[in-house]
Amino acid sequence: MTQDTNRQIVLAARPEGAPKDGDFRLVEAAVPEPGAGEMLCRTLYLSLDPYMRGRMNAAKSYAASAEIDQVMVGGAVSEVLRADLADFKPGDIVFAYSGWQDYWTSDGRGARKLDPALAPVSTALGVLGMPGMTAYTGLRNIGQPKEGETLVVAAASGPVGSLVGQIAKIEGCRAVGVAGSAEKCAYVTGELGFDACLNHRDQGFPEALAAACPGGIDVYWENVGGAVFQAVLPLLNPFARVPVCGLIAHYNATEPPPGPNQVPQLMRAVLSNRILVRGFIVWDFADQEDEFRDTVAGWIRDGRVKYREDIVEGLENAPRVFQGLLQGRNFGKQVIRVAPDPTL
Amino acid sequence: MTQDTNRQIVLAARPEGAPKDGDFRLVEAAVPEPGAGEMLCRTLYLSLDPYMRGRMNAAKSYAASAEIDQVMVGGAVSEVLRADLADFKPGDIVFAYSGWQDYWTSDGRGARKLDPALAPVSTALGVLGMPGMTAYTGLRNIGQPKEGETLVVAAASGPVGSLVGQIAKIEGCRAVGVAGSAEKCAYVTGELGFDACLNHRDQGFPEALAAACPGGIDVYWENVGGAVFQAVLPLLNPFARVPVCGLIAHYNATEPPPGPNQVPQLMRAVLSNRILVRGFIVWDFADQEDEFRDTVAGWIRDGRVKYREDIVEGLENAPRVFQGLLQGRNFGKQVIRVAPDPTL
Repeated sequence: MTQDTNRQIVLAARPEGAPKDGDFRLVEAAVPEPGAGEMLCRTLYLSLDPYMRGRMNAAKSYAASAEIDQVMVGGAVSEVLRADLADFKPGDIVFAYSGWQDYWTSDGRGARKLDPALAPVSTALGVLGMPGMTAYTGLRNIGQPKEGETLVVAAASGPVGSLVGQIAKIEGCRAVGVAGSAEKCAYVTGELGFDACLNHRDQGFPEALAAACPGGIDVYWENVGGAVFQAVLPLLNPFARVPVCGLIAHYNATEPPPGPNQVPQLMRAVLSNRILVRGFIVWDFADQEDEFRDTVAGWIRDGRVKYREDIVEGLENAPRVFQGLLQGRNFGKQVIRVAPDPTL
Repeated sequence: MTQDTNRQIVLAARPEGAPKDGDFRLVEAAVPEPGAGEMLCRTLYLSLDPYMRGRMNAAKSYAASAEIDQVMVGGAVSEVLRADLADFKPGDIVFAYSGWQDYWTSDGRGARKLDPALAPVSTALGVLGMPGMTAYTGLRNIGQPKEGETLVVAAASGPVGSLVGQIAKIEGCRAVGVAGSAEKCAYVTGELGFDACLNHRDQGFPEALAAACPGGIDVYWENVGGAVFQAVLPLLNPFARVPVCGLIAHYNATEPPPGPNQVPQLMRAVLSNRILVRGFIVWDFADQEDEFRDTVAGWIRDGRVKYREDIVEGLENAPRVFQGLLQGRNFGKQVIRVAPDPTL
């Protein structure tokens, strides 16, 4: 069953600070008509991810900015409705960066066919997709956790943090999570098997973190910045590794935080303890995509890795849900269900 | 010719901020008597290095603190006067961390015999010693300059910075130095062959640095911190490497600098440009010592590497000269000549 119109959410204005409703606009267009050698796809699940906040800015980053009045960028899982292509046929389920909209056409480039037998297809947005690969490749190439070491990761109930900690456990580490509510912390220790999880909103968080890391911290997975990093810094051990894959605490900032300037303190710790700090994005390790997917899919099958999705119905809710994501309101991988999943 | 007494400079007090005369005390002791299986040595050259400032603090760092009323730590080149040892005989020239004093005894452990035919023995404190090895191993293992890249190094006329830039030139890079006077900059470009050198005390230094690095910066060798790092940060290219071996601009700081807090800005650059920042000390690469010395000695013989020493006469002047070193008053590797060099 298809609709008559293609709902699209476009970037209406570049946000000042936190995005607000008016920075987005829902427009209705005709369902696009695929040409020769093209396919028409219908979005089933849209991924919402923190990196999208950066794309809303004009400033150059590792990827181009989104353009005003253009459809918001984003990865999605879709069903092929019609196709004039050798590699895709109606009923296929595909992943592509097809954006915040109901329908899209493509010549197939950039679309990847999914195997519904491997795992629910929505996992292509989370544990078996970009967030999962971020966790896997960042740990393998930069964090390099070793048996007996202690790893700390923030946003520990989210799609990246939850896999980071579970891989650390598989590698024989002590895994300590940081999350934004008691409920999330209970999930991180109870369901995911982390050794401890601290609520960064609690009074005395720095002291609690120190108590949870009696042997110091060997790997700090940086995906939030801000107060968590400040609490971690004095606990870092000699030769600690800090993969930097996100700074969600700063994404909405309009000016630098007040002083003192703690760069000297940071660099002194880097020097004294010979710390490695390295930024990366997942596509720096694109050649490890197959290895990642095979390995993590195996861990999911074996029950060694669990994941959680926070699925909200309705494309029209994406702007509001995205605003909440930047404030940590999601609990698990944030997904918008745009249309019913025919594989379930 | 030997004196009757052993002059020693001891740590009198832990400095608050910049060290002052009263933080040191010159004491006179008897010349020590070597026992069976020991040797007596006379200091010829004492090395003064920025790292010594850290040792004067009580705070833990990568090495133990100096102790109050104990002889100041430091590397030195000495002559063996008497010896009851198989490996050392009178007249041998040795390097050891024997401290700020005229005479010392040892069972030979920690002493390394020097070859006066290889190079002047004072170079064991500079280009062929710890500073040179810092430059060589930090570049080889962390900076990894590649042909056509741009490297920036501060304290460019000093023993570490001058070798960092010359190795970068050997590797086919553009080498841009930063130094603290027009005279030093003229030496860095004229004698050492850097492509450019900027005086960080000049008005418009950040703009001049940007103009000297039209292709951005691929390797920034961090040995100073402060304003130089702030000017470098926006110029760093994707996948830039930042070996951190010193932060001399901060060593005398008693409190963090005023805000804003620029840690978020730094981490954002690290993330967006996938920058690697890694602290190290030379002994992390102790297994590369022979390779370093063979390689750099060869470059000196071939005229591909030049070095400069700033030699001041008299052990009694070490405290004053050390205070100047922390303010950049040295011009080349800072050495105190404690006694005449018999190899010259």
